[in-house]
Amino acid sequence: MLDPNRLFPAEPAARRIAIKLYESVRDLPIISPHGHTEPRWFAENKPFPNPAALFIQPDHYIFRMLYSQGVPLEALGIPQADGKHNADPREVWRIFARNYYLFRGTPTRLWLDYSFETLFGLKDRLSPANADEYYDIIQKKLETPQFLPRALFERFKIEVLATTDAAYDTLEWHKQIKDSGWKGRVLPTFRPDAVIDSEFTGFQENLKKLAEASGEDVSTWKGYLNALRNRRAYFKKNGATATDHGHLTANTADLSPADAEKLYGRIYSGGAQPGDPELFQAQMLTELAGMSVEDGLTMQIHPGSVRNYNAKLYDKFGRDKGADIPSPTEYVRALRPLLSKYGNEPNFTLILFTLDESTYSRELAPLAGHFPSVKLGPPWWFHDSPEGMMRFREMATETAGFYNTVGFNDDTRALLSIPARHDVARRVDCAFLARLVAEHRLDEEEAFEVAKDLTVTLVRKAYKL
Amino acid sequence: MLDPNRLFPAEPAARRIAIKLYESVRDLPIISPHGHTEPRWFAENKPFPNPAALFIQPDHYIFRMLYSQGVPLEALGIPQADGKHNADPREVWRIFARNYYLFRGTPTRLWLDYSFETLFGLKDRLSPANADEYYDIIQKKLETPQFLPRALFERFKIEVLATTDAAYDTLEWHKQIKDSGWKGRVLPTFRPDAVIDSEFTGFQENLKKLAEASGEDVSTWKGYLNALRNRRAYFKKNGATATDHGHLTANTADLSPADAEKLYGRIYSGGAQPGDPELFQAQMLTELAGMSVEDGLTMQIHPGSVRNYNAKLYDKFGRDKGADIPSPTEYVRALRPLLSKYGNEPNFTLILFTLDESTYSRELAPLAGHFPSVKLGPPWWFHDSPEGMMRFREMATETAGFYNTVGFNDDTRALLSIPARHDVARRVDCAFLARLVAEHRLDEEEAFEVAKDLTVTLVRKAYKL
Amino acid sequence: MLDPNRLFPAEPAARRIAIKLYESVRDLPIISPHGHTEPRWFAENKPFPNPAALFIQPDHYIFRMLYSQGVPLEALGIPQADGKHNADPREVWRIFARNYYLFRGTPTRLWLDYSFETLFGLKDRLSPANADEYYDIIQKKLETPQFLPRALFERFKIEVLATTDAAYDTLEWHKQIKDSGWKGRVLPTFRPDAVIDSEFTGFQENLKKLAEASGEDVSTWKGYLNALRNRRAYFKKNGATATDHGHLTANTADLSPADAEKLYGRIYSGGAQPGDPELFQAQMLTELAGMSVEDGLTMQIHPGSVRNYNAKLYDKFGRDKGADIPSPTEYVRALRPLLSKYGNEPNFTLILFTLDESTYSRELAPLAGHFPSVKLGPPWWFHDSPEGMMRFREMATETAGFYNTVGFNDDTRALLSIPARHDVARRVDCAFLARLVAEHRLDEEEAFEVAKDLTVTLVRKAYKL
Repeated sequence: MLDPNRLFPAEPAARRIAIKLYESVRDLPIISPHGHTEPRWFAENKPFPNPAALFIQPDHYIFRMLYSQGVPLEALGIPQADGKHNADPREVWRIFARNYYLFRGTPTRLWLDYSFETLFGLKDRLSPANADEYYDIIQKKLETPQFLPRALFERFKIEVLATTDAAYDTLEWHKQIKDSGWKGRVLPTFRPDAVIDSEFTGFQENLKKLAEASGEDVSTWKGYLNALRNRRAYFKKNGATATDHGHLTANTADLSPADAEKLYGRIYSGGAQPGDPELFQAQMLTELAGMSVEDGLTMQIHPGSVRNYNAKLYDKFGRDKGADIPSPTEYVRALRPLLSKYGNEPNFTLILFTLDESTYSRELAPLAGHFPSVKLGPPWWFHDSPEGMMRFREMATETAGFYNTVGFNDDTRALLSIPARHDVARRVDCAFLARLVAEHRLDEEEAFEVAKDLTVTLVRKAYKL
Repeated sequence: MLDPNRLFPAEPAARRIAIKLYESVRDLPIISPHGHTEPRWFAENKPFPNPAALFIQPDHYIFRMLYSQGVPLEALGIPQADGKHNADPREVWRIFARNYYLFRGTPTRLWLDYSFETLFGLKDRLSPANADEYYDIIQKKLETPQFLPRALFERFKIEVLATTDAAYDTLEWHKQIKDSGWKGRVLPTFRPDAVIDSEFTGFQENLKKLAEASGEDVSTWKGYLNALRNRRAYFKKNGATATDHGHLTANTADLSPADAEKLYGRIYSGGAQPGDPELFQAQMLTELAGMSVEDGLTMQIHPGSVRNYNAKLYDKFGRDKGADIPSPTEYVRALRPLLSKYGNEPNFTLILFTLDESTYSRELAPLAGHFPSVKLGPPWWFHDSPEGMMRFREMATETAGFYNTVGFNDDTRALLSIPARHDVARRVDCAFLARLVAEHRLDEEEAFEVAKDLTVTLVRKAYKL
Repeated sequence: MLDPNRLFPAEPAARRIAIKLYESVRDLPIISPHGHTEPRWFAENKPFPNPAALFIQPDHYIFRMLYSQGVPLEALGIPQADGKHNADPREVWRIFARNYYLFRGTPTRLWLDYSFETLFGLKDRLSPANADEYYDIIQKKLETPQFLPRALFERFKIEVLATTDAAYDTLEWHKQIKDSGWKGRVLPTFRPDAVIDSEFTGFQENLKKLAEASGEDVSTWKGYLNALRNRRAYFKKNGATATDHGHLTANTADLSPADAEKLYGRIYSGGAQPGDPELFQAQMLTELAGMSVEDGLTMQIHPGSVRNYNAKLYDKFGRDKGADIPSPTEYVRALRPLLSKYGNEPNFTLILFTLDESTYSRELAPLAGHFPSVKLGPPWWFHDSPEGMMRFREMATETAGFYNTVGFNDDTRALLSIPARHDVARRVDCAFLARLVAEHRLDEEEAFEVAKDLTVTLVRKAYKL
């Protein structure tokens, strides 16, 4: 199923170069500085229950495509907000197999075929005819020690894996991993959205959790900021090297301390006026940038996703069920307050992501190609795909260079897709570099250096790993 | 003039695959579910008068390019609003021939060369030297029975051809075609813009025509909606399977029935306030989506064209004279009211088009890759070109897949360009698929299936043909 | 260092065509109708002082990349607003050499390697190891007569070189060049931003300079317009064929004469209300278009750059220090007032530029493909790069054709980069044309014509040279 030259240019001269470049980075360790796997998997190290629970139910790339073609989420056993989900996993798998053709031309297909073949030795394309065979083989393997989470982590040669965690998270699973003596490096990432976005479900509850976790009085602006500082220190002590922020826009603000305090007062008391929630998020990005200047945590901003767009689905299934849709995102005016204050700080790393590809060449590469603090995150989410990654290199490199980018993020909830995704990223980067070499825009020896830098050096540096 | 391998990749391995794929779809019938040909041509089946009237005067792709280089529309015999147009057709043809070099690199050039060679046997590129020879040969052929509209329809192997018709159209030509016993399938499409956009020329007159055609009292909101329902049923009875909507934006609204009624009252009475015309169009898209859920007509939205942009030209020549210019178009917030109400309906097909290519990967593919109702229309108008079609596949496929797209639309007023346009679309799709195969991203046997699906299967399904 | 086939497609058939096309245009003269070199260089004809002053300090492409990676501008000897700049040029050069790897994949690297090899015979890539050798060789050559500005101008085969000059500029250097009897054609370009943008530093002072230079009373609207007319005539007399306008947006307005007069009154008196500065700029674009209709000067608009974005850098180093960032730019609504008034004028040429690539296919190509006056400027600034130029051709050609474009602008402050930039542009155009030929979308004989037209014919025509 997997051709050794997949994703390389068809043109033989460029392909030969791509092959050589890829061979030089193929076996480098995986560094995964941003993602959404569960630390609990590695703390408990229990087997995954079945193929549907492993491949389909946690992967919104898969079930959103099936849903778009009329498959109800109930039939796929997607957990519902009220706790129900009782689809037979084998039946779920059969539905998936019947619809596998839908993934033609998508990265999901590449990731799945990679996992099927390299992990389970399955070399015939998944189809209705072999659905049960696939299911049985995968099920049997999942019951072996080689397929426990820690064994997979080691097999994948993961050097470090970052999770994403709420500001008030106790990090108990991370501590349990550390205490277990297992050497796998699983780090938390500080993601405070749930205590900053006042329209987030359970915001007031979340503030209470923040107060409890930090021991600070969050009823005052000062106490609230201290609570965040306290939690950042706690995350850092437990290995975190970065924070992450997923706002609707990239807007930042730089209010006077008095105005910021009043704004927080309205937010905290539930007396927010129209515009306050967004202004508060904007102000907080600048406050958090200042904290990054203090404590050295790398700051990531992932803006531009309209969350929970499909109200009917959200009501029944809750967050993160594939109904988030990108929207146009502006960076230049939005980031000016933050960058004017902290953009030139030598001890600050701000990694920008986007779902709006028109900003690569227009706004993001020019910002990263100027400000010492700004770096470009890799193609995100819908754009984490061969064409998407190639567009990113084509549109960003000429202005930002390679050295204002930060390598690859797999950003996944699907453990098995991690090596598959890194493999695609390495292949596409090598394909891009091979074209530059074949067109005599870069020397071949330099391309080897760049390939390695994109795979490990720049990641370690940007995320301080 | 026509190389058999035109539009295929130059790289030999990919080209060989493209050739094989193309051979498998080249001779499939043409399905044309959206376009602007005249049903009258097929009802009357009279010869086209002369080469200028056939090729130049109805084709805004041609005369806008000539106008951009200083050729007055009067000199081309473009019909004027006051009825004047008396240019000598042979002289028009000579102007065209002198300026044929302007079309280098444009799809118009591809379409024209295809028609000249395959229909008229003209194999030397059009030039001032052979302009008269071209004219005479074309003129002579037009007088033969093989060049009557119905003969061309059959020669082109058109399985079905949809026209675009006003809501109050009597469909007399369509009925005449049917009554004639000729087997060609020419279907109407319900396009109610002229009774929905209160700034449309003759809006009040159009409402009267709607009332007459439907027998409903359009002075009330309920009567107006009934009139539209009535006309949709009439169109459906006469073969229509789809509606089409060409608003300035993709905005939709979901007002309470009482507010909608009041809004219509202001629109109907001519007492519209600022913002009312656009709000009414937005509300009507949601109303019409509801009617599609009822009657099963596929709904098409073609937003984002600033119509009649060049006031001087519009005053002299009227609508559709090449002075429409695309503008940035937002879909995610705009469609939320409609999609929240009907987006999950199993009996609803909503085909979205755009003139803003930045929305392919950012908004449209994510919407189509999630909502069961949403499908992506093919590249439209300025983007119905080799580079434009390739960008569409590259930007949409990885998120929406192939199966949330609907095949090709020729969308033309120029009858002879229909097979030329479908040929370009088939070639570009095969070129894209060939690259996926050559880069081992898709198996070759699958590519054959997809090529056929894009050419006929998905079209028939989306338009219920 | 320089492969003769650089920037051509790797695929052999297309490469062979590209080579032939390039050979046909390689030695054509350079026409540089828009740029930012100093007329003083050619008037005085003095040697450039040292390699850092020649290559690094005037080139914001270079020092912005170095700054983005933490090199302070002070260390590079960038002139400060207070006049300080005392870095040792050899030390600056060593910093540059140590960081040369940062430019991998950027056009800057291509331009520099071209200059190093073709002008200085340096064939080993710049590195820390050979930094001093580079410095010494360049320094020594700069002291020879072959490297005086006029000798370089002649060596580069520059047919005409346009500078960019303030509305009140006395053009003394241009006159001195002419009076010297040297045959090099160095023309001024009328750029009145500093007397139109009321937020420009020193605006009131600038108005006084305008009054002095023109002898008009600029305290009245009529006098102000006459002053501009007077200066345009003066520029024209001194060889200017074009004007240039660098506003934040492309907005235009068409106020009544009375409203325009009142608006100017508020601007002149310093009593501008919010929105007035931008409205005045918008109105002035239309006024200046009207003057172009009168005097035939080609009008260029370069909108969309947020100037002096990094306040800290601006305070210390002043304008044009690499901290300008592009922002989303709208053209269709913005230009409607101007185009409605003058867009159909036969004696008017309006060249549009953009930093927002999403507008190429959406707005700019449709406008240029319709209005007789509108032409598309080449890819600008951040997009003046191999990928950027290729995207421009791919996105604009199918709608605007080749003949609504105007050839290449080097737009540079770096004299030595002029032939390098034109060489890249010619190679990329030939690579694009070669692909069209290899894919049988254009005949080879036509491609030769187009290559020449893009290199010289269209430039001469658009800029009336």
